[in-house]
Amino acid sequence: MTKFTYNEIKGGVCAATGFRAGGVYSGIRRNRTKKDLCLIMSDVPCSVAGVFTQNIVQGAPVVVCREHVKHGTASAIICNSGNANTCNKDGIMVANRMCGLVSEVCGLPPEEVLVASTGVIGQRLDITPIENSMDKLYSSLSRDGSADAAEAIMTTDTHPKEYAVEFELMGKVCRIGGIAKGVGMVCPNMATNLIFLTTDVSISSEMLQKALSSDVKSSFNMVSVDGDQSTNDTCLLLASGLAGNETICEDTNYFNLFCKALNVVTVKLSKMLASDGEGATKLVTCEVTGAFSVKQARTIARSVIKSSLVKAAMFGADANWGRVLCAMGYSDDRFEPSMVDVGFRSNKGYVAVCDGGCGVDFSEDKAKEILSEKEITICVNLNIGREKAEAWGCDLTYDYVKINGDYRT
Amino acid sequence: MTKFTYNEIKGGVCAATGFRAGGVYSGIRRNRTKKDLCLIMSDVPCSVAGVFTQNIVQGAPVVVCREHVKHGTASAIICNSGNANTCNKDGIMVANRMCGLVSEVCGLPPEEVLVASTGVIGQRLDITPIENSMDKLYSSLSRDGSADAAEAIMTTDTHPKEYAVEFELMGKVCRIGGIAKGVGMVCPNMATNLIFLTTDVSISSEMLQKALSSDVKSSFNMVSVDGDQSTNDTCLLLASGLAGNETICEDTNYFNLFCKALNVVTVKLSKMLASDGEGATKLVTCEVTGAFSVKQARTIARSVIKSSLVKAAMFGADANWGRVLCAMGYSDDRFEPSMVDVGFRSNKGYVAVCDGGCGVDFSEDKAKEILSEKEITICVNLNIGREKAEAWGCDLTYDYVKINGDYRT
Repeated sequence: MTKFTYNEIKGGVCAATGFRAGGVYSGIRRNRTKKDLCLIMSDVPCSVAGVFTQNIVQGAPVVVCREHVKHGTASAIICNSGNANTCNKDGIMVANRMCGLVSEVCGLPPEEVLVASTGVIGQRLDITPIENSMDKLYSSLSRDGSADAAEAIMTTDTHPKEYAVEFELMGKVCRIGGIAKGVGMVCPNMATNLIFLTTDVSISSEMLQKALSSDVKSSFNMVSVDGDQSTNDTCLLLASGLAGNETICEDTNYFNLFCKALNVVTVKLSKMLASDGEGATKLVTCEVTGAFSVKQARTIARSVIKSSLVKAAMFGADANWGRVLCAMGYSDDRFEPSMVDVGFRSNKGYVAVCDGGCGVDFSEDKAKEILSEKEITICVNLNIGREKAEAWGCDLTYDYVKINGDYRT
Repeated sequence: MTKFTYNEIKGGVCAATGFRAGGVYSGIRRNRTKKDLCLIMSDVPCSVAGVFTQNIVQGAPVVVCREHVKHGTASAIICNSGNANTCNKDGIMVANRMCGLVSEVCGLPPEEVLVASTGVIGQRLDITPIENSMDKLYSSLSRDGSADAAEAIMTTDTHPKEYAVEFELMGKVCRIGGIAKGVGMVCPNMATNLIFLTTDVSISSEMLQKALSSDVKSSFNMVSVDGDQSTNDTCLLLASGLAGNETICEDTNYFNLFCKALNVVTVKLSKMLASDGEGATKLVTCEVTGAFSVKQARTIARSVIKSSLVKAAMFGADANWGRVLCAMGYSDDRFEPSMVDVGFRSNKGYVAVCDGGCGVDFSEDKAKEILSEKEITICVNLNIGREKAEAWGCDLTYDYVKINGDYRT
């Protein structure tokens, strides 16, 4: 088996063979300049996998979509922004009706249509604008439609997020791509907000689910913007099988290769989500090395990236590493504080600030220069093992407060 | 036994018989206009109880103080602000030396001196200014010194926090009072930052510790400003016994009465801490009723009060109750979303916004009026039991970001 290599390609959620997408303005949102309804469609029935929010309060689309994913095959995803269709008396009916509308216009069984919604919680989602837009939405489908779909699922995102790669599997050229939106209510513990992924690899639903469930632990679950876990988080992965490889049905080297390619896409989208956190000016990575286990590294990295005090310090380009140790100390994992080294890294270089749990002399000017970059890494070495993990977040800024102080009205 | 009544009195940490306090500027802080060193002294050896941070990274004063509390009796508390004496190579030595200095000037055994520090983590605490100020500090002790001591322990607090009550126990007039500082790195799970309490009730160390350990669960552990748990959180309670009551040595009605009085003081100080959270413009209370257990009510109330999205909405006086349900949903406790009622209350009245998990029509103007007050309550009824709890926090504002974006430099 050859070493894993891949190329970035264009096309986002339509990069894989067999997928089209589109997005339109339907009228759910008041702002007519932004699309608010998207459709992603496969030419053939797909294997499907999904990961959903662990919040006890779940959006109606999550309830419906989870059932449809259990069906094992799916061909379409419909998603609106502007209203989460959550905590409503008739939410389930509306979510089912959204699937039904796609079913009618495309001639698919309704249970092969997946559904998601994002936006305000607790307001009724009027089905009328969606009904009235179905023909327009269906007509908008195209192989070039990824950017439109990515725009239609945005809420307070400042730009659409799409990414795709191609790689070789059993001598066939294969693709994985996707679109994502995140930004508010973004937190570890789930596939952050909405992520729709497609691939043309031929793989069984069981193995697809196994790949996705494992993947999110090192990708979307390692993203935190504000520690709030949404009621509507949904990550879906459709596999058309049109790449023509022999179907992956078990845990082979080919499966591992597919998982690697998937992780390239999901980690890239994770970083896009983190760096476009509400009000963010910086992508902040916490890299934990020297850990006893991957779980320990992940727990500690997430605790650092979630800390409001660390995030505010990063906004101020302030090398206040004591807050990093503090956030590590209240994570759910244990470690030996007197072994810990901490440093900050960016394109401008690296500065060590803590050695064996104690402060070291360092140049404040150099630290300021490093932390003033757009992408910075908090480097933590636990010095007790060989495992590592990364978590991604952003700084805490005035604009986060501004955006969230008056989002709904 | 008579019904429990109490009166608010002046005097703070010196309200109880037998206590003097003082605060001076020693030179630890660069800002000469604020005191940075305080001493609290009892005329007689006291029973002592303490509760400390659960952070794995612990300040040197916490390590030393915890040992001294185990000693069972204590007579003095020394505390500096401006430097946390945490993550330093010689921190333990410096903390011990602080106790030693008080021991020398007052003629006490060093293990009867308690110590605490607050401020920046990871910088050496120079003992010299403390040594040079000991005579001045000792001379500053007075029965009127509570306000000076309260000022000396402040960091980014905007005002000193002190409170005291008197009540009757076995026919004797007794007092409990204290001072506190909080504001940054304030979070549930521990006696929030520094709280020094005194009483003249006669009570054994064992019962005093029992009272304090139980009390913090419904007081300081229910406060959250930013979810960051400090490395230096310390809550100390000294009992001089000079009220002359028969010593409380077991779990009697008198003990319960003492616990009630203690809770009046700690809840009041908790609310002071929450309303003076960094950048806060409002005291936000989350009241959870109809819970199956107190533990459930507490867990859910804390989850709501910690949510950045809820806090930002309160800043914007935005009745975005979906964020309340969302934060409840990712707490560590389970409940039935379709049973939940939510409303907002303040001096301007009450507005119901969610009934049985679904939104209800309400006046946005009325909600805005209610949420524009300085003290607001988020009312959650789980409708499954009879237990309840309250948690206290504040709104998330531009100033929180400003204060923490450049605190250290």
